[in-house]
Amino acid sequence: MAVSNNMKQLKEILGIAADLNAASALLDWDMRICMPPGAMESRSFLLATLEEAEHEKMTSRKLGTILRKLEREVEHLDPDSDEYRLVKKVKRNYDRNVMTPSAWVRRNAQAVAHADAAWEKARAAADFRIFAPHLRKLLDLKLEYVSFFKPAEHPYDILLDRFDEGMTCSALNRLFHYLKKEQGAIIREALAKEKPDDSFLKQKYPASKQLALTRRVLTRMGYDWNCGRQDRSVHPFTTSFGLYDVRITTKVVEGSPFSALFSSIHEGGHALYEQGIDKNYARTPFADGASFSVHESQSRLWENLVGRSPEFWVYWFPVVRKMFPGNLEHVSPDEFLAALNTPEASPIRTEADELTYNMHIILRFELEKSLIEGKMKVADLPDAWNAGMKELLGIEVRNDTEGVLQDIHWAMGEFGYFPSYALGNVISAQLWNAALKQIPSIPESIAHGEYAPLREWLRSHVHVFGAKYNTAEILTRATGSPELEPEPYLNLLKKKYC
Amino acid sequence: MAVSNNMKQLKEILGIAADLNAASALLDWDMRICMPPGAMESRSFLLATLEEAEHEKMTSRKLGTILRKLEREVEHLDPDSDEYRLVKKVKRNYDRNVMTPSAWVRRNAQAVAHADAAWEKARAAADFRIFAPHLRKLLDLKLEYVSFFKPAEHPYDILLDRFDEGMTCSALNRLFHYLKKEQGAIIREALAKEKPDDSFLKQKYPASKQLALTRRVLTRMGYDWNCGRQDRSVHPFTTSFGLYDVRITTKVVEGSPFSALFSSIHEGGHALYEQGIDKNYARTPFADGASFSVHESQSRLWENLVGRSPEFWVYWFPVVRKMFPGNLEHVSPDEFLAALNTPEASPIRTEADELTYNMHIILRFELEKSLIEGKMKVADLPDAWNAGMKELLGIEVRNDTEGVLQDIHWAMGEFGYFPSYALGNVISAQLWNAALKQIPSIPESIAHGEYAPLREWLRSHVHVFGAKYNTAEILTRATGSPELEPEPYLNLLKKKYC
Repeated sequence: MAVSNNMKQLKEILGIAADLNAASALLDWDMRICMPPGAMESRSFLLATLEEAEHEKMTSRKLGTILRKLEREVEHLDPDSDEYRLVKKVKRNYDRNVMTPSAWVRRNAQAVAHADAAWEKARAAADFRIFAPHLRKLLDLKLEYVSFFKPAEHPYDILLDRFDEGMTCSALNRLFHYLKKEQGAIIREALAKEKPDDSFLKQKYPASKQLALTRRVLTRMGYDWNCGRQDRSVHPFTTSFGLYDVRITTKVVEGSPFSALFSSIHEGGHALYEQGIDKNYARTPFADGASFSVHESQSRLWENLVGRSPEFWVYWFPVVRKMFPGNLEHVSPDEFLAALNTPEASPIRTEADELTYNMHIILRFELEKSLIEGKMKVADLPDAWNAGMKELLGIEVRNDTEGVLQDIHWAMGEFGYFPSYALGNVISAQLWNAALKQIPSIPESIAHGEYAPLREWLRSHVHVFGAKYNTAEILTRATGSPELEPEPYLNLLKKKYC
Repeated sequence: MAVSNNMKQLKEILGIAADLNAASALLDWDMRICMPPGAMESRSFLLATLEEAEHEKMTSRKLGTILRKLEREVEHLDPDSDEYRLVKKVKRNYDRNVMTPSAWVRRNAQAVAHADAAWEKARAAADFRIFAPHLRKLLDLKLEYVSFFKPAEHPYDILLDRFDEGMTCSALNRLFHYLKKEQGAIIREALAKEKPDDSFLKQKYPASKQLALTRRVLTRMGYDWNCGRQDRSVHPFTTSFGLYDVRITTKVVEGSPFSALFSSIHEGGHALYEQGIDKNYARTPFADGASFSVHESQSRLWENLVGRSPEFWVYWFPVVRKMFPGNLEHVSPDEFLAALNTPEASPIRTEADELTYNMHIILRFELEKSLIEGKMKVADLPDAWNAGMKELLGIEVRNDTEGVLQDIHWAMGEFGYFPSYALGNVISAQLWNAALKQIPSIPESIAHGEYAPLREWLRSHVHVFGAKYNTAEILTRATGSPELEPEPYLNLLKKKYC
């Protein structure tokens, strides 16, 4: 019974920390969706205060004492039990968090809020120099953060750990080196092909109907509107404030009439993950994804392997044809699908297709590494960026807004985040193959607009566990092996594009 | 220099507490405007956690120590200086807050969130019994709260103090007794008169245009959209998250086409107050109104003394006539104004006109007093409510939703709040007279759609001080006397309605 009393105290602390974290997330959502522009400075104080309060809660001496007791007490429990796992996870986070001073957390949160505002200004002016001093500050803060810990094989490993427990820079070097070569070859072959006619995509598709379509698709996917909502934003994202409030945002892109749909399916994939987590994990650190890469695998799987598949459009093409009268009257399903899947090298990551996407990530990874290693100065980023885009995708970047300023991640102080996207692509194919092996009828269901078989497989093999397991453990449960395997992903690309 | 160091520490603590308070307010705004329904339970945890965190910050031993030092240190300062006043105010709040245990704050916040949800259900079912157990719980919590303090002349005084420092039950008894008699006589006379023709108000006024009108009026009033926003909600309200983010909400009422306008002017009055507070007071307890009653005086002044005046409509009637083509073509300005100012006893407080409004407050005050004194049981509220409405305004209440369930205040655990509304009415007329005495041309400016003279007078005599002064001090600065005087208000009513 001693376990149960300490466990109760632990859960109280975790619950309060989770609430503070959820409140931060809501402040952030509001900042992007609702907040009037004049409130930016004062919002930065709010965010800093909440982050600091959560940090203090999660590094308190009281928590340390309880954890020491609990570590002994759970020793006799099943190492796969929730209690055992929870104590181990919290202890791991605690050991990491206590190395980070509260004052750093506050300084970082405020620097991020300011950098965010400067980034918006720099984008509007297409001038990296407006953002550069802020980025330097954020980079210095990150290097200071790294210095709090005992040296790793590579300093970048310490940053990666926050997004994907146990991931290392050297593992990424190997994987990305391989992808660069193999995926690069597929890209070159695919881009050389003649483009199909996609003139019907240039017609008028009213935004309100585009959004109505996203709602219909999300509803069929199983997104729970009673515990969620959809808004429009400049940068689509998913956020959750506890397991009962999982919100997505969508962007309507002028001239790209199905962009809103694909980004909604993408965010819907993230949202199904959050909504599928065991509700008993609410207000604990398990109420989260296994890692950023597993999270991304869900959005990628739904967006690319479901949403861009022929089966998906068997059901939806007639619907879409009816929703946009005239636009698709003389277009065949095959022509439609071919147009949606035409590879094209874009300067913008969020608009990149599944074929070229990873190249954007590899560029960012290499630049981040150089910055962290001190081999590159912030001022040199735009040139290095533009050279990289030229080398990897043959693209001439026209200005900083379309180049080095396009992503918000660095403005949020997030270094080490980008690799998750490429890992998510790789994992999505591994999970997809595993699901199809166990339920071969999944594509047939999708052709009928039925997603329950796939969703429930994902739920029971991935979602329900939340953050109880890490990436390797989820892979083991779902695929039988803990290894990241790029082959399934490369094979899917080859099949589709070559 | 010792002052400056302790003051710096004080301001840090106050800043963090203000941030936590602002985050709570945002969680509450979001709950009412954006939150999906399934998140109610989890939101209650978030609110409780933030309230408790703020309470802990404002009752910490560290704050107590700093305050003890500062109290001595500010003794030699001007008693009207910001520093002196801030220390006195924080000390007063501290002494009150330390009497309230953290656990009570958490229990209360959670009970409120649950009561809120039950209140919504009870309203939908028009059944008080669904809400009754929650109200009993909130009442018990309030009686427990009262018990933390040394007995006052009346236990209600302890509740009043949170809304209006120094206000007492006996002062309200006197004032309300007088208003009941004097205002009651005006009401009887006015309601006996023949009603003017208002059939033109029964035509179609599209909601989108009603809202466009509110935005035009708010803009001219001087509402700062760069630091604010307007949403639609079931119950109009104003909220602020620091001084740079002051949001209002508006309700469009079917069949009452100028209700959205008047409620927007009302909330605009609150918002101008918040936006007019000295920005140097941000993240301190001064970033607030002097009291709930002074706050309400601002909304009432703008809504009734400005918005329902003939001068206001000299400017706006031609605009409105053009905005709603056909509806007002054959209506004269006088007919229009008469229709807007026709007194009518309504069962609903928020729809009550300026003439009958105070009767709604007096009823609630008497019921609250009986509950607090233990002279009435929660179960007996609906009958007592209905009897009171019959006695005060001759109204037969049709069901609980139109009766005892109409207001959210009790569901928020707010007892002692309602009197502020009646006090606000009284104060609004005192301030109005004082402003007109100093700037006799104010009505003429209003006739030209110019509100700067009035707004700036209010700003310099009321708004800018925030919560540095209490009600009596604001009254002294603005009118020359600290006394609440019902005569100016009664005279305005007599002039208009008799």
